[in-house]
Amino acid sequence: MEALSSKYKRVRKRSEDICSTLKTEDYVVQPMVDVSPPKWHLGHTSWFFETFLLISHLKGYTPYDPTYSYVFNSYYESLGVRVIRTDRGNLSRPTVEEVYDYRHHVDAAMEDLLSGSISDQVNMLTVLGLNHEEQHQELLATDIKYILGHNPLFPTYREISNPIRVATGAEEFIVIQEGTYDIGFNGSGFCYDNELARHMVYLPAYKIAKELVTNGQFLEFIEDGGYHKHEYWHAEGLEWVKNNNLVAPLYWHHMNNQWVHYNATGIKPLKLDEPVAHISYYEAFAFATWKEMRLPTEFEWEVACGQFDWGDRWEWTGSAYLPYPGYSKAAGPVGEYNGKFMVNQMVLRGASVVTSPGHSRPSYRNFFHPHIRWQYSGVRLAQRMN
Amino acid sequence: MEALSSKYKRVRKRSEDICSTLKTEDYVVQPMVDVSPPKWHLGHTSWFFETFLLISHLKGYTPYDPTYSYVFNSYYESLGVRVIRTDRGNLSRPTVEEVYDYRHHVDAAMEDLLSGSISDQVNMLTVLGLNHEEQHQELLATDIKYILGHNPLFPTYREISNPIRVATGAEEFIVIQEGTYDIGFNGSGFCYDNELARHMVYLPAYKIAKELVTNGQFLEFIEDGGYHKHEYWHAEGLEWVKNNNLVAPLYWHHMNNQWVHYNATGIKPLKLDEPVAHISYYEAFAFATWKEMRLPTEFEWEVACGQFDWGDRWEWTGSAYLPYPGYSKAAGPVGEYNGKFMVNQMVLRGASVVTSPGHSRPSYRNFFHPHIRWQYSGVRLAQRMN
Amino acid sequence: MEALSSKYKRVRKRSEDICSTLKTEDYVVQPMVDVSPPKWHLGHTSWFFETFLLISHLKGYTPYDPTYSYVFNSYYESLGVRVIRTDRGNLSRPTVEEVYDYRHHVDAAMEDLLSGSISDQVNMLTVLGLNHEEQHQELLATDIKYILGHNPLFPTYREISNPIRVATGAEEFIVIQEGTYDIGFNGSGFCYDNELARHMVYLPAYKIAKELVTNGQFLEFIEDGGYHKHEYWHAEGLEWVKNNNLVAPLYWHHMNNQWVHYNATGIKPLKLDEPVAHISYYEAFAFATWKEMRLPTEFEWEVACGQFDWGDRWEWTGSAYLPYPGYSKAAGPVGEYNGKFMVNQMVLRGASVVTSPGHSRPSYRNFFHPHIRWQYSGVRLAQRMN
Amino acid sequence: MEALSSKYKRVRKRSEDICSTLKTEDYVVQPMVDVSPPKWHLGHTSWFFETFLLISHLKGYTPYDPTYSYVFNSYYESLGVRVIRTDRGNLSRPTVEEVYDYRHHVDAAMEDLLSGSISDQVNMLTVLGLNHEEQHQELLATDIKYILGHNPLFPTYREISNPIRVATGAEEFIVIQEGTYDIGFNGSGFCYDNELARHMVYLPAYKIAKELVTNGQFLEFIEDGGYHKHEYWHAEGLEWVKNNNLVAPLYWHHMNNQWVHYNATGIKPLKLDEPVAHISYYEAFAFATWKEMRLPTEFEWEVACGQFDWGDRWEWTGSAYLPYPGYSKAAGPVGEYNGKFMVNQMVLRGASVVTSPGHSRPSYRNFFHPHIRWQYSGVRLAQRMN
Repeated sequence: MEALSSKYKRVRKRSEDICSTLKTEDYVVQPMVDVSPPKWHLGHTSWFFETFLLISHLKGYTPYDPTYSYVFNSYYESLGVRVIRTDRGNLSRPTVEEVYDYRHHVDAAMEDLLSGSISDQVNMLTVLGLNHEEQHQELLATDIKYILGHNPLFPTYREISNPIRVATGAEEFIVIQEGTYDIGFNGSGFCYDNELARHMVYLPAYKIAKELVTNGQFLEFIEDGGYHKHEYWHAEGLEWVKNNNLVAPLYWHHMNNQWVHYNATGIKPLKLDEPVAHISYYEAFAFATWKEMRLPTEFEWEVACGQFDWGDRWEWTGSAYLPYPGYSKAAGPVGEYNGKFMVNQMVLRGASVVTSPGHSRPSYRNFFHPHIRWQYSGVRLAQRMN
Repeated sequence: MEALSSKYKRVRKRSEDICSTLKTEDYVVQPMVDVSPPKWHLGHTSWFFETFLLISHLKGYTPYDPTYSYVFNSYYESLGVRVIRTDRGNLSRPTVEEVYDYRHHVDAAMEDLLSGSISDQVNMLTVLGLNHEEQHQELLATDIKYILGHNPLFPTYREISNPIRVATGAEEFIVIQEGTYDIGFNGSGFCYDNELARHMVYLPAYKIAKELVTNGQFLEFIEDGGYHKHEYWHAEGLEWVKNNNLVAPLYWHHMNNQWVHYNATGIKPLKLDEPVAHISYYEAFAFATWKEMRLPTEFEWEVACGQFDWGDRWEWTGSAYLPYPGYSKAAGPVGEYNGKFMVNQMVLRGASVVTSPGHSRPSYRNFFHPHIRWQYSGVRLAQRMN
Repeated sequence: MEALSSKYKRVRKRSEDICSTLKTEDYVVQPMVDVSPPKWHLGHTSWFFETFLLISHLKGYTPYDPTYSYVFNSYYESLGVRVIRTDRGNLSRPTVEEVYDYRHHVDAAMEDLLSGSISDQVNMLTVLGLNHEEQHQELLATDIKYILGHNPLFPTYREISNPIRVATGAEEFIVIQEGTYDIGFNGSGFCYDNELARHMVYLPAYKIAKELVTNGQFLEFIEDGGYHKHEYWHAEGLEWVKNNNLVAPLYWHHMNNQWVHYNATGIKPLKLDEPVAHISYYEAFAFATWKEMRLPTEFEWEVACGQFDWGDRWEWTGSAYLPYPGYSKAAGPVGEYNGKFMVNQMVLRGASVVTSPGHSRPSYRNFFHPHIRWQYSGVRLAQRMN
Repeated sequence: MEALSSKYKRVRKRSEDICSTLKTEDYVVQPMVDVSPPKWHLGHTSWFFETFLLISHLKGYTPYDPTYSYVFNSYYESLGVRVIRTDRGNLSRPTVEEVYDYRHHVDAAMEDLLSGSISDQVNMLTVLGLNHEEQHQELLATDIKYILGHNPLFPTYREISNPIRVATGAEEFIVIQEGTYDIGFNGSGFCYDNELARHMVYLPAYKIAKELVTNGQFLEFIEDGGYHKHEYWHAEGLEWVKNNNLVAPLYWHHMNNQWVHYNATGIKPLKLDEPVAHISYYEAFAFATWKEMRLPTEFEWEVACGQFDWGDRWEWTGSAYLPYPGYSKAAGPVGEYNGKFMVNQMVLRGASVVTSPGHSRPSYRNFFHPHIRWQYSGVRLAQRMN
């Protein structure tokens, strides 16, 4: 098994790799409230290690800069006044270079801490910090895409886009029999508190698609007037569509009588056999309704996921993000990680092309508000058996 | 069994009874977006019968006034342009008298329609219309309370308040064993489509309180600083509390060093042994967390509800409002009744002091957004068994 | 000269006459923030007499209802907490009948006060109160028009519309020579503090139209694409036009390929030779620019007004509402009447079809924000001499 | 006289000098809507020369990058779709380096254009472009102050602050006799169209302070409760104060029982004898009212300004920004420079510590909305003679 200090270096390096093609300016801006400036991600993940590990567990360590706790804190109510998220894009200082200096200072101290024998507490918090960092790596990737993809110059991020599984065209389904199934994490490694409290769930028989919905299929929905027909939508979804004049997934543009989309390599023609991405729960639901199917619940997904390929798109489920029956919130700041978000959000399962390797698992629960679409969110169809 | 025409008269009369002490002016205003002017409720429920029964099923019937369909339509997208809800409080015409004339005109035509032999379709739609009217009766009562309770003159609605079951002080719990239970409607009378598709749900063992949380218990939460301690709240709940400077349930006022509340008889001292009402899901959740318990799921409530008294307060559950596994939306306008609201809302079970007699049942699902508190919403605690 | 008590009765009666065709419901609503419910006007004007005259000057008088001071106060900061204007439309109580009772109670007490010999202070305050009432009469008329004209039933207010001077078609101008002119009130009767401090103003030579701009002329502007050509508009005017999707004056509708407008008698075809009304300063300015002319300043208007007919339309001027050089604010509540509004507003001169008889004069200064158009505001063109 | 090409180089260099201590990140952010990112100023001023001079007047010149016209256009409606100002802070590209490359490319081409004999049109447009650049230099300075002064790290901009004239403490006044005075530009050099059309204005006798109001005097106003007493404020000013919880000028902070303020060198103790800066028109007006004086009109200021020192603070006047009687808007884009802003703004006269040398003059009219305070705006008192 990989040593913790080695894993620490590997994971931390990956965050910097994601930013390696950025210009200094790209690190600074925040074009919408859900996006954070890349430099904030780099600082915040370092602040996490400094606050929860170095200050408490490394003898003699003093905070690198006391103002950073104000700048790089996130939503940790118990640690003091929160920086309002919309303000992050107004902060030119600390500079990108200063953030990297901070980062490397923290890394050196962490190496120091991890070089000797470490307590279970340090081990647990370091693993949590690395998983936290991996979550931010995913956000880094999607935030960078948003920043560049909303710039009128449509800059290139990388020369090649992430490779993606394309559809075979065979619309096959897996059938799952009715029964009582175990749900939740049952491995031995790391998982979040929201996956714990493994429990039984009764499921009626259902079928679930082997492949994700493609751009081509979603285009049929658009061309059938799907965005304008109220019968497919939640009332709030329809209002959201109207208020924002939406006609297609995020990053799709209709230029010169052709559908194109922005990806890492710039503006490109849409590939019809790629799985659709960047749709909201509202759109996923409307599409499924139009298809006379539905989204799987998160339990249906977890039970069936061993029988299909997943990992390219976060997949919207029909489940609201709620605690499992035996859920209990951890004490202290760690307990603020999940529980307080369990309202008004929908669960996504799987992973996406920008998820860190090894970061996801069958029991992993992601969650977003139903209008969110800057993640690589897609849709897999399900249907009950008659 | 009561004849349909007799039931029609009884239910329709009850709506007018609810308004019998109102002044003309009280029928007109809309002090917040979730409240509708009483005259709108009276007109809208009549429009329902005119549109879905009289126009289609009573030979020779012509619409009473073609503009009324514009004024009294609700959220029925499939019937044309919706009146924006916030606009209802700006409409002085039709007058209250004209609305009553319209109402009585519809009633006379409905009597005509129901006097002979009627088709299954007419029977079904009339029953639906009466249940629809009963839902609006509950809204009428809570909207009138909001209108009068937000007037600086605090006018009296009725000389006596609705009688209410008070707490015994014994904090007893019912224990339910783990197992697979049937959920959903299985009677022979009327129910909504969202209660149908009876299905099995597996539940771990749990206990659930015999009595509702009281004003006195909620006051302890307030006095313990509950509204200011982030650890009890959802992040969005806390933001809602802060943005609205909330310190107590709706209608509570702290006057002359005493907690009072507004009810049908005016401003009165709070009775500590009455069940708390007019709290949001956020407050119900925070209270339960403070108590180191939780809200029951809607399934837990339905399974246990035969063993406790209910009906005075709508009870917040920990379940998001989602379709049952076998749910399918009815075709046509009737299908817009429930399905399109199944996002971002939480389920309440039970009934309240202003629910029409016979309108609720164990499988009945009410639903509101988590910040809503102008309904008689309360809280019953639950806990898992160790 | 008319006795003060007789004048009091005449003016007070006129307010009730304006409301004589209203239904109770029409008294209650507030469809936009600048409009007040008619019953509020009736109560507020009575509150003025009660507060500034009866309480201080009529021995033994006690306030009719202490809560009314909260409900009917306006923007008088020095008298206590202000009711937020947008809330007025939410108040069903006091009822219309109660407001009339209050009104008549105040009237009886005022008759008592005015029946004997009265001090200069009482005389002055009564005259101010009557002028205040006349200002509210104008608002009553325009607010009622807004309430009925924004109701989808377009109810009739009166069987006949106010008669109006129509244009002759001769586009004649009056020429005024350059010179120093006296500006401000110099009569012996009542005037507001903002007209006082008569002073000299130097004016270059100019010409000013004998007649107001007509509907027909304004229609030419519309048909020439005037609302879409930025070069005629202030930047803020253009933004206002775009944000509100405006294409014509308020109350104009394009129905069945014809321009119609709402007036006291309902929806009627537009009369092309009537002076245009219900336009904002932005629209008046854009129209004048399109005509290659400009609006007169308030000084140019005052100097020339003896040479043309006026009184049907409030006329936008090119002058911002600012204090005259010698202006000083009166002490006490009376001093809040004008001075604190002298920012961000433009001056209108003249009067309108709904101005109370005798209420206006050449030195009278009305003022509104540049986007306001629910008043009978029109435009008269001017031009400098070369 | 300085050659145009030499002046071009000097002025253009000064913009870069203002930015010489910035970090790359400081060029990018936009912490409020009135502030533009420094790189935008550098690009926009270059775009001005490219668009109005190089493309039309330099043979063979092609736009450097066609997308830049979209990014760096300002409010020039006649040149195409405007970039919404609030979006400027979201654009990471073009990078700062690319903007400087663009700038230097334009400079080289302009040197080429100005090296030979030039037409009157080129001369006029170049002078306009340099004045435009100087206006943006002032904005650059105040925008940078806002960016750094709203960063929780309060970074230093320069080691020394701009030197400033301090008050002597003698509260002396200049007396101007009544009469008719000439107003407007009458020199031979450059001026804006809004200063032209020199015309006569009649002024009553008045007196005007020799010195600006100081921090110390403004502190007395604060300590007397000036921000909380409605009688000194416009109604809209008071609402602005309340909505924003204001208690002092911008950049003032009350730390450790001491008033400090942010300036170019960081957080420093307030100097009581320096002229107050960063106050809005509302605050200037309230202060003057508290002093039982008033602001001078722009005409009073222009007539008297030869008799006092000015140039450190833009001075709020009591005049609304309106066209002079003979004003006519220039044809084409140049005509959009001033006229379309002549509504809802107040005139400031003078100049400030960050105004480019030689950029101001007695007839110069600056203008801002009454709530604006990120400029070095101050106040000089006036009073009419009795």
